[in-house]
Amino acid sequence: MPASYAYLGPEGTFTEVALRTLPEAATRELIPYVSVQSALDAVRVGEAEAAFVPIENSVEGGITTTLDELVAGAPLMIYREVLLSITFALLVRPGTELSDIKTVSAHPAAQPQVRNWLRNNLPDAHWESAASNADAARLVQEGQYDAAFAGEFAAARYGLRALETGIHDAENAQTRFVLVGRPARPAAPTGADKTSVVLWQRDDHPGGLRDLLGEFATRGINLMLLQSRPTGAGIGNYCFCIDAEGHISDRRVAEALMGLKRICLEVRFLGSYPRAGAGVEDVSAPRLGTSDEEFVAASDWVARCQDGRF
Amino acid sequence: MPASYAYLGPEGTFTEVALRTLPEAATRELIPYVSVQSALDAVRVGEAEAAFVPIENSVEGGITTTLDELVAGAPLMIYREVLLSITFALLVRPGTELSDIKTVSAHPAAQPQVRNWLRNNLPDAHWESAASNADAARLVQEGQYDAAFAGEFAAARYGLRALETGIHDAENAQTRFVLVGRPARPAAPTGADKTSVVLWQRDDHPGGLRDLLGEFATRGINLMLLQSRPTGAGIGNYCFCIDAEGHISDRRVAEALMGLKRICLEVRFLGSYPRAGAGVEDVSAPRLGTSDEEFVAASDWVARCQDGRF
Repeated sequence: MPASYAYLGPEGTFTEVALRTLPEAATRELIPYVSVQSALDAVRVGEAEAAFVPIENSVEGGITTTLDELVAGAPLMIYREVLLSITFALLVRPGTELSDIKTVSAHPAAQPQVRNWLRNNLPDAHWESAASNADAARLVQEGQYDAAFAGEFAAARYGLRALETGIHDAENAQTRFVLVGRPARPAAPTGADKTSVVLWQRDDHPGGLRDLLGEFATRGINLMLLQSRPTGAGIGNYCFCIDAEGHISDRRVAEALMGLKRICLEVRFLGSYPRAGAGVEDVSAPRLGTSDEEFVAASDWVARCQDGRF
Repeated sequence: MPASYAYLGPEGTFTEVALRTLPEAATRELIPYVSVQSALDAVRVGEAEAAFVPIENSVEGGITTTLDELVAGAPLMIYREVLLSITFALLVRPGTELSDIKTVSAHPAAQPQVRNWLRNNLPDAHWESAASNADAARLVQEGQYDAAFAGEFAAARYGLRALETGIHDAENAQTRFVLVGRPARPAAPTGADKTSVVLWQRDDHPGGLRDLLGEFATRGINLMLLQSRPTGAGIGNYCFCIDAEGHISDRRVAEALMGLKRICLEVRFLGSYPRAGAGVEDVSAPRLGTSDEEFVAASDWVARCQDGRF
């Protein structure tokens, strides 16, 4: 297996910064790809060991390109996740002052996060979308635009200066990234884990989604993400991307997944992996009656009843 | 083990008639006891192999004496149930006409089922309660009362005549009886079975009962009886006697019982046994996704996910 990670390029974006927070990234070659699709395809065809891509944005929600890639095609698995706080810097060529700026550029996803700042500080500046924030910075370097919104870390790479930093409209704007590889045995549970699945309902009957969610609720499992995605089979046909608290090796999670497998048309397991940003204080005790020990004790009790030893 | 069945006496009551519908009763000595408690105690101390007692009446509901005996004390198990349609005959001494009847007698439980008939046919007759319908018949034989409400089958035994038969206020008035023994391996499933349990909640939080019922609903299991009984720990403290469709050897039932064992303060298994009155047409297919085959397939799938083979 090649010791390389594909990631959504170009270099110098938030994705690369997030990827470099993973200890295992230090021992891999990191190769930028032009799209989420091409990065994931690199994994599917065996060009890369894993791919690192954004999957959820606290301002915009699920990143549909990534979700749709995980939902369809050859199965992939999430190995790790990274949460990165997103604040922008306004990058300019040395010598440029705020009053000189007539054009600004960034990736379209940046716009909702800098909109208020722009209205208050550069109400007359003209917005030009770029393929990535790093591309916008390069175009500023080349003189095409006056300023770019990008991570402060991009300034040095493109010989620019951060005229302003910490720009973000929403407090706690974060992007969640995932390291995706081919199916493998999930890493052992850490106690603060997350399990991702995609669910297709058997039919769209009243209460169908409630039945799906009941499989988690009955086993005391909290959900951390519920995102519906069209299945492509027409208006009203959705599948559900769900992140649930816990690890597939937890008895309560395994039993909930079995329940879903029984009642759903299809279930795609997307992995069990450590929850990003979870500290010791987040390793919460399972809800009363849902610990592995209680599952084992209950199973023993039923076996005794089946044998008439009670 | 003594080859005898204890039953709620005296002889000549509906209980005895119901007991004699069981093929296994033909090979046992049938011994009447004066109360449900004494019949069940005979089993607990090993005097009798099993006891046959009424447990539910379609007019009056659960028979609390029997439920409370099963809920407390040394564990017992229901082996079989019998449903008997209850219609009364008006038994008199030969020669007595309707117009001669001044006093009528029966067990108090009979009264709600003959009340309308009495109002319409013997509005002035005086009611005298007896310890059992058979006792009432004996007292008519001895000349103490003019007429007794009892099963038609009691007439011959007490030298009486059925002046009227088929008396019942409620259509389809039925009594359910159970054959109760010491804990043993439940009989193999027939496909139309019932499982009885008693549940004690861990605490009385809002939605607590809904959580208990959710353990059944999540596995597609219908309930056939839900009767609350005071626990004796003060007003508002109840346990729940539940009859559920299915057999403890069905995967869906076993998993529901495990779920209850995990979340309840206590669960008492009262047995899995053939459903009385169920014909071939009642052997319904389990709800989609809850057959044993689907449980096994789902379990295999989760095991493959845990191993990274998907």
